[in-house]
Amino acid sequence: MEIKLAESCGFCFGVKRAIRLAESNPNSVVIGELIHNRREIDRLSQNFGVRTAASAEEINGGDRAIIRTHGIEKEAKAKLLTITDDIIDATCPYVTKPQKIAETMSQKGYQIVIFGDRKHPEVKAVLSYADKSAAVVADASELETINIGDRVALISQTTKSIAAFGEVAAALIARTSEARVFNTICNATYDNQEATRKLAKEADIMIVIGGKNSSNTKQLHAIALKYCADSYLIEESSELRREWFSGKRLCGVSAGASTPDWIIEEATKSIAQFELLAGLD
Amino acid sequence: MEIKLAESCGFCFGVKRAIRLAESNPNSVVIGELIHNRREIDRLSQNFGVRTAASAEEINGGDRAIIRTHGIEKEAKAKLLTITDDIIDATCPYVTKPQKIAETMSQKGYQIVIFGDRKHPEVKAVLSYADKSAAVVADASELETINIGDRVALISQTTKSIAAFGEVAAALIARTSEARVFNTICNATYDNQEATRKLAKEADIMIVIGGKNSSNTKQLHAIALKYCADSYLIEESSELRREWFSGKRLCGVSAGASTPDWIIEEATKSIAQFELLAGLD
Repeated sequence: MEIKLAESCGFCFGVKRAIRLAESNPNSVVIGELIHNRREIDRLSQNFGVRTAASAEEINGGDRAIIRTHGIEKEAKAKLLTITDDIIDATCPYVTKPQKIAETMSQKGYQIVIFGDRKHPEVKAVLSYADKSAAVVADASELETINIGDRVALISQTTKSIAAFGEVAAALIARTSEARVFNTICNATYDNQEATRKLAKEADIMIVIGGKNSSNTKQLHAIALKYCADSYLIEESSELRREWFSGKRLCGVSAGASTPDWIIEEATKSIAQFELLAGLD
Repeated sequence: MEIKLAESCGFCFGVKRAIRLAESNPNSVVIGELIHNRREIDRLSQNFGVRTAASAEEINGGDRAIIRTHGIEKEAKAKLLTITDDIIDATCPYVTKPQKIAETMSQKGYQIVIFGDRKHPEVKAVLSYADKSAAVVADASELETINIGDRVALISQTTKSIAAFGEVAAALIARTSEARVFNTICNATYDNQEATRKLAKEADIMIVIGGKNSSNTKQLHAIALKYCADSYLIEESSELRREWFSGKRLCGVSAGASTPDWIIEEATKSIAQFELLAGLD
């Protein structure tokens, strides 16, 4: 049986970079959970002494503070700088970009409109760089509820779909003289979905690794099931069953955006082990 | 019977302005037909000696030249200036705006994309102000056939529908980092349609005045017919029939974008005359 990993799966560029920064800055303190994966946070804590603070207020004078991929609000960063200047900024560059756009376009007199979830830390941080006329909309229909200026800069939360962003842009254009639309969407999630779809089409068993409560992982599992009936969602290798692989030709492996490489490797090694044991039967 | 004119009908702002300029510059020469209405062109010729030249090449040294609402290409204007500096620019301000945007945005390094009909004089003129990377697309699907840069300024032909423009913008956003979308649509045609719809709903007879081969007039007639079965399309008052108005309560009047006010007035006076004659019966 061949084991094939999806061309794009697991951590995105920004998350990988943040973990590298955490590993190279032992005993530092992350403001908020670095990623939504308990085992990875435990690993960073055990191997590198990296702790987690609930908020910037918990940082002390002597701490080396890590800002996570989502970024933090402008005011929180300013406050943090009064406590320590030993700061490692792991804000994803794809998130720094909309922050800068919000700040520059506000200065140039554009009203900022952000397409995203107003409760998401990334959106809160981007919003903090815009002036008071800024607004956050969850979809095109929400645009109707806000005042729209004559010149607007439109930004998207990095994880939104481009089709939905296009709908917001189209609705906005009808209500303003100039809409300056910045495509700030990161397509890592989209790439993972497309790669899983492609792999599931040729595989006769699919293993999707990730949190069972993770929305993007569940989406990958649903896509896999559509093209390959024998698709399983697991959180870790101990859940794998030897009998699943009996008589299979090609095993496809994919993973959600919050699944670290080492958990993926652990699982693929376990699968290969079943194959080896099958040869000894 | 009450006679009510649609809140918005007939000539748009730009056409009215062009005719005012022609009237106040007797014996001038218009480059191309000022408007698509033979009777109005004859009136300007007979009453004001305003002639029509087929192109800028036909202008002579002593002529006072009028540039019509569509504008002319940058090179043609430069050439014209070598012949005469006695130029009346009747380019509609709504058309001058996209010309200026095309020029300024080209200078700022944006690729210009124009949503419109590449054979239309207005589009040709706007395009002449952009640099060589510019493209004209008739719809969103045409975007797929052209190379798209990293920073694009999107402009619309003034008479396009905002919904179709939104579709082009949405498709563009997926292919570029920054799409600077300028809403250059003039809504005069849209306003005329909405006003006709509103009036037809309350009227029990509708008279739509305009060319029988005029696309926008035919559209107004179709809208009127939808809400008022007794809707007639006429080119001039001689076509009106007294019996149409017998027993009617409210007569609505609308007119296409190429119908001058005096032709509308002529028709409403004729309708009022029928009413007067009915009183004498």
